[in-house]
Amino acid sequence: MSQPAPEPTSLVERKQRVVRQRIVVAANELFHARGFDDVSVSDIAAHADVGRTTFFRYFGDKSEVLFEKEREMLDAILRAAEDASVPTARTATEAVGQLRPIVLDLCARATADPEGYARRSLLLEQHPDLRARDAVKQQQMSDRLTEVLVGRGTDEGTAVLAAQIALACYQTARRRTQTAGVLTDAARAAFEQALALGTA
Amino acid sequence: MSQPAPEPTSLVERKQRVVRQRIVVAANELFHARGFDDVSVSDIAAHADVGRTTFFRYFGDKSEVLFEKEREMLDAILRAAEDASVPTARTATEAVGQLRPIVLDLCARATADPEGYARRSLLLEQHPDLRARDAVKQQQMSDRLTEVLVGRGTDEGTAVLAAQIALACYQTARRRTQTAGVLTDAARAAFEQALALGTA
Repeated sequence: MSQPAPEPTSLVERKQRVVRQRIVVAANELFHARGFDDVSVSDIAAHADVGRTTFFRYFGDKSEVLFEKEREMLDAILRAAEDASVPTARTATEAVGQLRPIVLDLCARATADPEGYARRSLLLEQHPDLRARDAVKQQQMSDRLTEVLVGRGTDEGTAVLAAQIALACYQTARRRTQTAGVLTDAARAAFEQALALGTA
Repeated sequence: MSQPAPEPTSLVERKQRVVRQRIVVAANELFHARGFDDVSVSDIAAHADVGRTTFFRYFGDKSEVLFEKEREMLDAILRAAEDASVPTARTATEAVGQLRPIVLDLCARATADPEGYARRSLLLEQHPDLRARDAVKQQQMSDRLTEVLVGRGTDEGTAVLAAQIALACYQTARRRTQTAGVLTDAARAAFEQALALGTA
């Protein structure tokens, strides 16, 4: 399921992407070397060889750099929504089934760099503010998943439930394992259990 | 299911409870009259006729006053956990079934004051910081629900999934309706759908 992000079309977009990526790499290097608290936006900008103004053109604050993956994930959900070949999910079970490959794809993206994933998990553990932002991003993700289903014709009530169930499976996987390599499998198992809830 | 909070045992506890409640009422009155942003901790303390030091003995900041309901809800979950008569849930379905009455009880508590609930919902809509804190409280709630199940002997993997599914049902209800009076019914319907996922 994991597709690379589509190539940006214009030279400007390609350049923006390079700068954004440079900031992300620079920030992660500094967070890793000095600790999150001891790194300022100015440090990151200097290390990425850009100005502070440029930094703020891409990110609202230094924490936001840590959620670049989530931004990519939200974009990936939008692209999944554009696939017009998927029929309307008529039941909650069908709707959860449609969200499953999207969420498994997100798990694969989130853990593509296992070391980065582990470092980030540790940062979230240590910083309540980052956990709060993460929690908000998760809810944004479920709202986006709801939109995908509604866009395909599923009624909103069913879509809301299915998106929250899909998020529950993702959160379950994150809680069941700290190991990047098995996150996707853990999410797959959670979906299987959720989709068998009425039967056992 | 909705039980009143048990009576505090000592005079000190009763007094603390009165002061806490006075601060909550004072804060809500001021937030309603002037808007959340234009009310300081000093304003709240003065209106509640306590000192700032006393305020901070009970609440970390002015936002925390808005999550008094959540604190009560976490306490209620703890009390539910103490009911030793409940057998071990052996499957995810049984586990979700055990969490259902607890979550429905929480919905009833959260909406016991419909006007307060509506005002608070509006505040959350307007303030991203409050939404972030709310999202964290929700995850704390699901962690507490996990503990309830584990305490009764359910294996942790099943407990984590069941708690996340229960949270998903609660979140679904909150998204499906803005009307306090029907939140509990909406949550009941969400649980029914979730517990029928394998059958449709």
